[in-house]
Amino acid sequence: MFNFLVRQTDLGGQARLGTLATAHGDIDSPAFMPVGSLGPVKGLDAGDLQALGFGLILNNAYHLYLRPGHEVVAELGGLHAFLSWPGAILTDSGGFQVFSLAKLCKVTDEGVTFQSHLDGSLHHITPERTIEIQEALGADIIMAFDECVAFPASRDRLREAVLRTNRWAVRCRAARRRTDQALFGIVQGGHDPDLRVQAARDVVSMGFDGYAVGGLSVGEDKSVMYRMLEATVPELPVMSPRYLMGAGMPEDLVEGVARGIDLFDCVVPSRHGRTGWLFTSFGRVLIKNARYARDERPIDPECRCPVCTQHSRAYLHHLFTVKEMLGVRLNTLHNLHYFADLMRRIRKAIQSRSFAAFRQEFHAQRERVGAECGDVSTRGTDAVQARTSWEEERG
Amino acid sequence: MFNFLVRQTDLGGQARLGTLATAHGDIDSPAFMPVGSLGPVKGLDAGDLQALGFGLILNNAYHLYLRPGHEVVAELGGLHAFLSWPGAILTDSGGFQVFSLAKLCKVTDEGVTFQSHLDGSLHHITPERTIEIQEALGADIIMAFDECVAFPASRDRLREAVLRTNRWAVRCRAARRRTDQALFGIVQGGHDPDLRVQAARDVVSMGFDGYAVGGLSVGEDKSVMYRMLEATVPELPVMSPRYLMGAGMPEDLVEGVARGIDLFDCVVPSRHGRTGWLFTSFGRVLIKNARYARDERPIDPECRCPVCTQHSRAYLHHLFTVKEMLGVRLNTLHNLHYFADLMRRIRKAIQSRSFAAFRQEFHAQRERVGAECGDVSTRGTDAVQARTSWEEERG
Repeated sequence: MFNFLVRQTDLGGQARLGTLATAHGDIDSPAFMPVGSLGPVKGLDAGDLQALGFGLILNNAYHLYLRPGHEVVAELGGLHAFLSWPGAILTDSGGFQVFSLAKLCKVTDEGVTFQSHLDGSLHHITPERTIEIQEALGADIIMAFDECVAFPASRDRLREAVLRTNRWAVRCRAARRRTDQALFGIVQGGHDPDLRVQAARDVVSMGFDGYAVGGLSVGEDKSVMYRMLEATVPELPVMSPRYLMGAGMPEDLVEGVARGIDLFDCVVPSRHGRTGWLFTSFGRVLIKNARYARDERPIDPECRCPVCTQHSRAYLHHLFTVKEMLGVRLNTLHNLHYFADLMRRIRKAIQSRSFAAFRQEFHAQRERVGAECGDVSTRGTDAVQARTSWEEERG
Repeated sequence: MFNFLVRQTDLGGQARLGTLATAHGDIDSPAFMPVGSLGPVKGLDAGDLQALGFGLILNNAYHLYLRPGHEVVAELGGLHAFLSWPGAILTDSGGFQVFSLAKLCKVTDEGVTFQSHLDGSLHHITPERTIEIQEALGADIIMAFDECVAFPASRDRLREAVLRTNRWAVRCRAARRRTDQALFGIVQGGHDPDLRVQAARDVVSMGFDGYAVGGLSVGEDKSVMYRMLEATVPELPVMSPRYLMGAGMPEDLVEGVARGIDLFDCVVPSRHGRTGWLFTSFGRVLIKNARYARDERPIDPECRCPVCTQHSRAYLHHLFTVKEMLGVRLNTLHNLHYFADLMRRIRKAIQSRSFAAFRQEFHAQRERVGAECGDVSTRGTDAVQARTSWEEERG
């Protein structure tokens, strides 16, 4: 059912063009996955995501396990039927949410005991249990269960988490019953390059259908994240898909691709959309700013999305000001279009053997316009992103 | 620009088929207007409303006067441009909102002084000022300023309000500058049939492009509302459109049409949608009920709306439970489709000279199925509607 083909590799670089073949369609990579924490991407329906060009979304096993429950989803025919989503789905194992959202989290080698962030009810999750839950949910790609460590952490703490994550990975592999789902292993190791290399070698030796880089975009500097990718990716098999978990600012995508990443997910387009942070080719537009109250221009005059071709900044400013939910929907549609379009442009650049030039121009344009406009600043973008990433940027 | 044509009248009844011609399209009547209090119908875009078949929406002058301000809307090209709405628009005068939402409302013959419900700022509105605001907003149909009296009220209080409303109507007529907008007069008179008749005669004698029946659906029994329509409508010119303001439960539409009403508006489809109250051919479905958690059927198996053709009750129940905003959007889309479809069926029945039979079957079906299902009850519908109408059913 699942297959990954590297179709082209960038000359003199790590960027690559590929195709993920799934039972629910082929996805061109590098690809970005919108996040539907509770099922849908907030405010959007399946048709909206298809119209934007997405063929693969991410759902959170943790949230769906709590509500409506994986047995309910299974009874209703699995996630695809439940969501009426004809495309492919990846579920995360819930590890990140257990460690970041749940209360009174207690970890042993056996598994994790935690209290639901919703009602304080007690839950016990093991590697075997996460596979059972994800098999019931029925995504095309499922993830091994990993221990996520808050940033910053000591080397000993990171090493302990890596060793446990890898022991859990073995158990996840052994616990599989369904053969029609791809299972990805996760490389942890925090901001320690040696640990990353060791973790990658161990996980690769177990043999998974794909490999994820976890534990990044949790508050560290971008330079640290890039260095960790540079340490990790070369250890991963060339023919397997590589997925950078939870990082999704536009510059992360460009720089991740430059370091050989094929898949990304992040709640940034939707969550930032809800706060009125709009992504454009020239940086960000904070639509709440009073300067937009009478601005008849679209968010980004160069954008061809259904929002920019139809609505003014003034209207979106009004919707934000009066807290009208249509504003959230339109902001999210615009942001997701920006992300889909960015990935299309990245793929096109790789295909035409001009990714290095694309990457250079991408940064240059943001620097250029960012210096001119008040709320258009890559620097500001980075700062806010670093501050909020752990608490806010992931479901 | 504005023209109304009665194309057919029901044999032996008051129901009639007509066409409202506006600069922004022709609208078949009887018609229902979705309400966009702050501009859009909550969560929906222009394309959504067009796809549902609506050609005429209502916007609240009160809300748009406060935010973003009528001058801002005018500067941006008027409401149609601001909302990117190609169809027709009716604005109410703000009277209802001033009297129901605003604080410390002080009425004199000259006008009304009130505090904004948003920030307590002081505003003074006169009949002349409401026309100025509505001309700036630029709807196709604008409304005279009326004094709305809370239910119940004494006959003296009602008479006083009628006399003031009618004096204000004269001033509204005189204050007009734009000739490309239709201006509708409003008949008040509470639950007093004699007052209604007198109010209607006075307003009609002034000559408006259409006539609205105001001050109903404010907490009175449905039988009282129907009696008031029976007293008022025969006083209105046969060739002018008749608009029942703010009443919009399905039975109100059928019974209003039966009494000669051409236009309706109500926030019921969207507001009830937000509370998970879904309208169907057999009564209501309260999607929050646990019984729907594993129900694979659509809301209404007979419904052809984009929600019922795609999603299960179980999914909508989940979206409601987790407070996912997509749930509100889907519920609203379904409810508005129900209303659009009900009006289409009403028009078809009038056209095929079978409205009396349609009306009988409409009530019979709800009685029949309502008696069988727990949360499907016309009786319950009425009770809740009567209780919440004044505070909640209007923007």
